[in-house]
Amino acid sequence: MTEDKEKTRSTVEIYGEKYTIVGYENPEHIYKVASIVDNKMREIKEKNQNLDTRKLAVLTALNTVNELLKCEEELERLKKEVKN
Amino acid sequence: MTEDKEKTRSTVEIYGEKYTIVGYENPEHIYKVASIVDNKMREIKEKNQNLDTRKLAVLTALNTVNELLKCEEELERLKKEVKN
Repeated sequence: MTEDKEKTRSTVEIYGEKYTIVGYENPEHIYKVASIVDNKMREIKEKNQNLDTRKLAVLTALNTVNELLKCEEELERLKKEVKN
Repeated sequence: MTEDKEKTRSTVEIYGEKYTIVGYENPEHIYKVASIVDNKMREIKEKNQNLDTRKLAVLTALNTVNELLKCEEELERLKKEVKN
């Protein structure tokens, strides 16, 4: 474990719970990411009042992976388009 | 609430818990998404043995939103490149 790059440590609050994130991203970016996750969880909760936080977080991860796969597919398609 | 499109109902297992997903995606796609979330949670757990499932799921959502933002940024950049 080397510590030659400058690591940042950011504390964010997601769905009422604090998380300390250590990494190389700038803190503003981490706050933005955290607020997106928090919003997504609250959106799902609105439609499914009976979900506990664990299920809510898993469903948020599911939705986001789904969006990520679609984004990656579009990126691949566009990269091929640029090549031709 | 209209039911004129054909909805699918898929039961997936994520981190030992079953979730029923109702939507318009095909079941194979939902199984793929679920297995990605399950793998991501297990990867984070390996590095952080003391995390409970709820925190694990929130951190998985955080990592995925981070990847999604980077993918969307690259997509925007590439779209501008295609235009020019």
